[in-house]
Amino acid sequence: MTYCAGILVQDGLVMIADTRTNAGLDNVSTFRKLHLFEEPGERILALASAGNLSLSQSVISLLTEGIPNGETGELEKLDDAPTVFRAAQLVGRAILNLRRTMGQALEEARVGFDVSFLLGGQIKDGPMRLFMIYSAGNFIECGMDAPFLQIGEHKYGKPILDRAVTFETNLFDALKIGLISMDSTMRSNIGVGLPIDLVVVRRDAQKAEIVHRIEASEPYFSDLRERWSAALRAAHMAIPRPPYGPSA
Amino acid sequence: MTYCAGILVQDGLVMIADTRTNAGLDNVSTFRKLHLFEEPGERILALASAGNLSLSQSVISLLTEGIPNGETGELEKLDDAPTVFRAAQLVGRAILNLRRTMGQALEEARVGFDVSFLLGGQIKDGPMRLFMIYSAGNFIECGMDAPFLQIGEHKYGKPILDRAVTFETNLFDALKIGLISMDSTMRSNIGVGLPIDLVVVRRDAQKAEIVHRIEASEPYFSDLRERWSAALRAAHMAIPRPPYGPSA
Repeated sequence: MTYCAGILVQDGLVMIADTRTNAGLDNVSTFRKLHLFEEPGERILALASAGNLSLSQSVISLLTEGIPNGETGELEKLDDAPTVFRAAQLVGRAILNLRRTMGQALEEARVGFDVSFLLGGQIKDGPMRLFMIYSAGNFIECGMDAPFLQIGEHKYGKPILDRAVTFETNLFDALKIGLISMDSTMRSNIGVGLPIDLVVVRRDAQKAEIVHRIEASEPYFSDLRERWSAALRAAHMAIPRPPYGPSA
Repeated sequence: MTYCAGILVQDGLVMIADTRTNAGLDNVSTFRKLHLFEEPGERILALASAGNLSLSQSVISLLTEGIPNGETGELEKLDDAPTVFRAAQLVGRAILNLRRTMGQALEEARVGFDVSFLLGGQIKDGPMRLFMIYSAGNFIECGMDAPFLQIGEHKYGKPILDRAVTFETNLFDALKIGLISMDSTMRSNIGVGLPIDLVVVRRDAQKAEIVHRIEASEPYFSDLRERWSAALRAAHMAIPRPPYGPSA
């Protein structure tokens, strides 16, 4: 299982991904699911993946090595995409390319073609954008009304994002809320776990401001988890008990 | 969509269900999903349903009118079940009975046989128990380690239950936490909505202490929602921002 969240606020972009993968509960490993394609000051794309690891890794290899353009025959790489939109299209084409080569074999083995991506970033003086790309290669864009997108095990961590994140949220508050969302997910689904990879990109910087991996021993994240638990306990204890009685 | 939760603590049982059903977003209605089978002081069973409304309603009709026992030919009703376990078995048999009569027609219409139940209560001097019954007719029992079960749209509302409910939780605190869990679900999935039905059964009372429907205008629930939102905002604002910097 996987949980990845992307948050796009006024000041920039946050992307967070866990690293746990499993093929059955006795085969649990750590794999990077958050990848950076960066030329600092010029362009930065962050790509987070969920779904079947063999598929997501192959898509990333295709995007790195290049996909032949059907018309020109040239190899197109994510590093060469002129805009974030074109980069999202290329991720979609990589997925379809893989579906053509692998889809039937997977179907025969009764393995679903399950893969999805978050792609966020900014290229040169183009706009900062965040997309979610589905396993059919189509994609949607993050808007200002709900300034986040999620892939993988997304439901446990959605309530806090729904309540706490707006487009005006401070960039580091967005990161903090993203980590609370990750914590909620990790508590409810053991298939999502530490370490956590994160990247923070300030708008118009065209480079990562922070690239960080949170390990199990990290004091800040442990403290955040404890404070959040304590605050939730206090929060529900401060609410009066229901007044309903037998006469109700 | 539906969300129902059952919480079984030391002092008794809480069951909560929303009432929204929809067949497409332009056909939204209110239907009771929480049903009581009660003989006060003698026996009480509360049955909450999720899934296809035509299936859950038919199961409840079968349980009310009775299902022929294959061996004796007698009609067995939920009201006659001698124990909560036997009642859960009867719900399972009602589901299988319906699958035999309706399963193929639904399959031909490409409608999934989607239905599940929570059944909780106490019969005479037997133990108070809570079961979740699946669409195959099998079921599991709620234990003391995680003293709650959920059906329907369960993920949004699970984190608060995971954190806040233990077997020792006060009965009315359990109800309050259940309502917070319902609130989280309603905020994240518009298919779950007011009014909310709830029942509270104190252990060894063999009758409902509270049967209540929360309507949209109710002050307590509106206040709970506002307090919870405000507390969550305060909680995440009180947590320091991440200390990660470019040097990290």
